[in-house]
Amino acid sequence: MNFKQKFMGTSHKNNSLLCVGLDIDEDKIPKSLFESSKHPFLDFNKSIIDATKDIVCAYKLNMAFYEVFGKNGIDLLEKTIEYIPKDIVVILDGKRNDIGNTACKYAKTLFETFSADAVTINPYLGKDSVTPFLAYKDKCSFILCRTSNASAVDFQDLNVSSLPLYQIVAKKIKEWNENDNCGAVVGATYPGELKIIRTILGDHIPLLIPGVGKQGGDVENTVKKGTNNKGEMAIINSSRGIIFAGNDEDFSEISRNKALSLRNEINKYR
Amino acid sequence: MNFKQKFMGTSHKNNSLLCVGLDIDEDKIPKSLFESSKHPFLDFNKSIIDATKDIVCAYKLNMAFYEVFGKNGIDLLEKTIEYIPKDIVVILDGKRNDIGNTACKYAKTLFETFSADAVTINPYLGKDSVTPFLAYKDKCSFILCRTSNASAVDFQDLNVSSLPLYQIVAKKIKEWNENDNCGAVVGATYPGELKIIRTILGDHIPLLIPGVGKQGGDVENTVKKGTNNKGEMAIINSSRGIIFAGNDEDFSEISRNKALSLRNEINKYR
Repeated sequence: MNFKQKFMGTSHKNNSLLCVGLDIDEDKIPKSLFESSKHPFLDFNKSIIDATKDIVCAYKLNMAFYEVFGKNGIDLLEKTIEYIPKDIVVILDGKRNDIGNTACKYAKTLFETFSADAVTINPYLGKDSVTPFLAYKDKCSFILCRTSNASAVDFQDLNVSSLPLYQIVAKKIKEWNENDNCGAVVGATYPGELKIIRTILGDHIPLLIPGVGKQGGDVENTVKKGTNNKGEMAIINSSRGIIFAGNDEDFSEISRNKALSLRNEINKYR
Repeated sequence: MNFKQKFMGTSHKNNSLLCVGLDIDEDKIPKSLFESSKHPFLDFNKSIIDATKDIVCAYKLNMAFYEVFGKNGIDLLEKTIEYIPKDIVVILDGKRNDIGNTACKYAKTLFETFSADAVTINPYLGKDSVTPFLAYKDKCSFILCRTSNASAVDFQDLNVSSLPLYQIVAKKIKEWNENDNCGAVVGATYPGELKIIRTILGDHIPLLIPGVGKQGGDVENTVKKGTNNKGEMAIINSSRGIIFAGNDEDFSEISRNKALSLRNEINKYR
């Protein structure tokens, strides 16, 4: 089963475009876990997964939040991925890339060592850096197109032959999609750009959309501009806004309620 | 002691602009090590370090080659860094970046968890993604400017207000250098671009230059165009060409000879 089949299967079953970002943070997980558990981070992730697995279409793990703990963090990353139900896609958000020889190693790391279904990659190095990821035909590579941060404008909006760079990147993503395994990362905080990118990419390329929740992206705009003609092919991520919504013993219940409410709000506009 | 002081100290002492890239590779290290050693990768790195530490100015570890082994790879990365003499700068080549909140975690990972003296980062996300790295005033952040691969042209050479994007990036690097802790990554395979970038950056910003050796960058051109007015501020990296030069029991001696010969060739043109 390839990425799209797996993603669409769960998305239909759970009636959801919501992706929950498992971005653990020592300072934000409930203090009580450090007393009650020998493995507070893993137990935190497991609780969030248990509480949300019937209402999400994907889980996303941002690698920075794991790497910061060194080899223990990598162990936690591996154990968390192992715990995620096999029918839900795992997106490893590492925004990696390098020249071809090294990009092969990153692709192997993410897709083989860590068994990711999908990854995020940075386009700055061009096609030969992207190709080793796209060689994994059953996986999906979400290429950074227009990011959600304020400084996205610094380079991504610069005009190149009268088009902003991010649109040139979007056109390249469409061109690179020969194996039907490209996606694009587009921030929810810029709905105008989201609409333009969806138009360039057409209806068959999935968008990974961070930036609703804590970053302030508007849900209605995100859904209407980011989904395709069938209200699909968008993976809308929220991390901190869901997983750190509660900080007491009932944290996973509060996270579930937040996730449920966001899933339903998304569905209202599809 | 900040990055520049440490780098210049060793560079003078060892009369060297040569950086050796410790990019381990299962398929390329001597087979005999798998029989004679319980820790073949670590022992390989230790042998290369022992054989070259008096003739280099820096060691660079490309993180892809370690991450591919999961938590064992991170352990190896940490132990290798620990083994490098404290007066030689360690460059962690991860080409990371993300939005501000997450970039803080990457900066913490690389500079604190792994104790790097310098890192490589990707500029595509703009200033707010770079700032968390630059907040480490005593460290150095080498920002990808013009990479050494063939597809570098895809985006980096696109004209923006009649300048190629990589030159806009170079101008930003100069602007972001308020704490005197920026550097730029420029491939040796493009000497024309190297010269232009050195001119934009002036004489005080260090360049990390991969691409001599296996990738075919010309040494004379690299030195003449990449160093500053004093023949300094360039860190010229070779990985595979040095560390995998031999594949028998005398591999470290062969690597030393290769490194010595490249250091001397570099010095001839300074």
